[in-house]
Amino acid sequence: MQTLVICSGGMDSITLAHKVAKEGNLAHILTFDYGQRHVKEIDFARHCADDLNAKFTLIDMSNIGREFTGTALTDNVDVPDGHYEQANMKITMVPNRNVIMLSIAYGLAATHKLARVALAVHGGDHFIYPDCRPDFIEAFAKMQKMALDGYANIDIYAPYVNASKADIANDAKLLGVDHRKSWSCYKGGDLHCGRCGTCVERREAFDLAGYADPTQYADADYWKSVICKSVIKAGA
Amino acid sequence: MQTLVICSGGMDSITLAHKVAKEGNLAHILTFDYGQRHVKEIDFARHCADDLNAKFTLIDMSNIGREFTGTALTDNVDVPDGHYEQANMKITMVPNRNVIMLSIAYGLAATHKLARVALAVHGGDHFIYPDCRPDFIEAFAKMQKMALDGYANIDIYAPYVNASKADIANDAKLLGVDHRKSWSCYKGGDLHCGRCGTCVERREAFDLAGYADPTQYADADYWKSVICKSVIKAGA
Repeated sequence: MQTLVICSGGMDSITLAHKVAKEGNLAHILTFDYGQRHVKEIDFARHCADDLNAKFTLIDMSNIGREFTGTALTDNVDVPDGHYEQANMKITMVPNRNVIMLSIAYGLAATHKLARVALAVHGGDHFIYPDCRPDFIEAFAKMQKMALDGYANIDIYAPYVNASKADIANDAKLLGVDHRKSWSCYKGGDLHCGRCGTCVERREAFDLAGYADPTQYADADYWKSVICKSVIKAGA
Repeated sequence: MQTLVICSGGMDSITLAHKVAKEGNLAHILTFDYGQRHVKEIDFARHCADDLNAKFTLIDMSNIGREFTGTALTDNVDVPDGHYEQANMKITMVPNRNVIMLSIAYGLAATHKLARVALAVHGGDHFIYPDCRPDFIEAFAKMQKMALDGYANIDIYAPYVNASKADIANDAKLLGVDHRKSWSCYKGGDLHCGRCGTCVERREAFDLAGYADPTQYADADYWKSVICKSVIKAGA
């Protein structure tokens, strides 16, 4: 089942690419540049495709991103520190991003006569991002069946849609994925900052999975204070 | 109900823009350049926005188009002459084009806090293009409600989805749309060629609506021979 994986170069989608490859289905890795302030993650996606002998396509959406102002990933808005919380994370949302990326992925999959598009949405994103929820994924797949009726028959593969990020870290452990070759940080430094939402989540997921985190963080211990606060808050 | 109209600069979407403006709802015109061999239609879309005092956004998708090879609109494949027929028209199809354009339109509408996205799909396209059918439009709108839940509430407006191209020409007549300011031809000449599928359809629609066609065609009478053949074939 020849599969195209949408891969940002982050921990989740790099793990997914390895999972699909292990299952014998990896054909193509598709990465989007939507005007991120750092291109490091794109290089990690490209190297992943090389390592796994998959075709690689980079689609530049930065011109589209420029129309989508007011979001931290494309503008000069400060990225907040700390654990993911709804108020913080809304500003990192590019309106309709997953729908746009999925629709282009389907077009590319149809062009290359592939049978499946895979994406690494996970359960931890449901509350904040509506376009990561299972009912959205199902509605999208259904809409695409209609849109390509008679031209292509492409399924969607979102194996982590009800899993946690710790489950993904656990898959990485089972698959032996080298996560020195993935990038999560929303800030553009030489090292992962260790303080932004994705860094804290990344570090925590490795910890919960009992998989040694090979990432070098500028602030390696910050995550503990945030997690502690979060636990205290939940227990209060 | 502030509306964004997806407008190619062709006869259908130019008429739609005038219809939405007449209804008092036109806010924004969005046009895509997906690597067409002729940019004339883009200029007509831009001028339409100027004439109707709407914002105008051009999104360049030509880099995406380059990945979608084998289609007449983006490659050097010959555009067939004659009336639309399934075999001919499949080659003018960019895989998943309407889904991609709609998803970007929704993102832009969300950014600008608009309430509606309008597109000019019509009944004549149903047989050939699955992504012009009413069930697709409905499924797309439903998927988007889920994808933007809590962020935006955007409806879809496709008033011609069950209409014919002649009905659109009739609307143009009622609205007094000047169709010297729209472009339909799939070939890139100085004049409409008069022979390709869209030219023949355009000419026929004006004729059926009893609206004088102001278009200058390089081959002004070709459409009659095609329509006659089509009628003979249908009657055979």
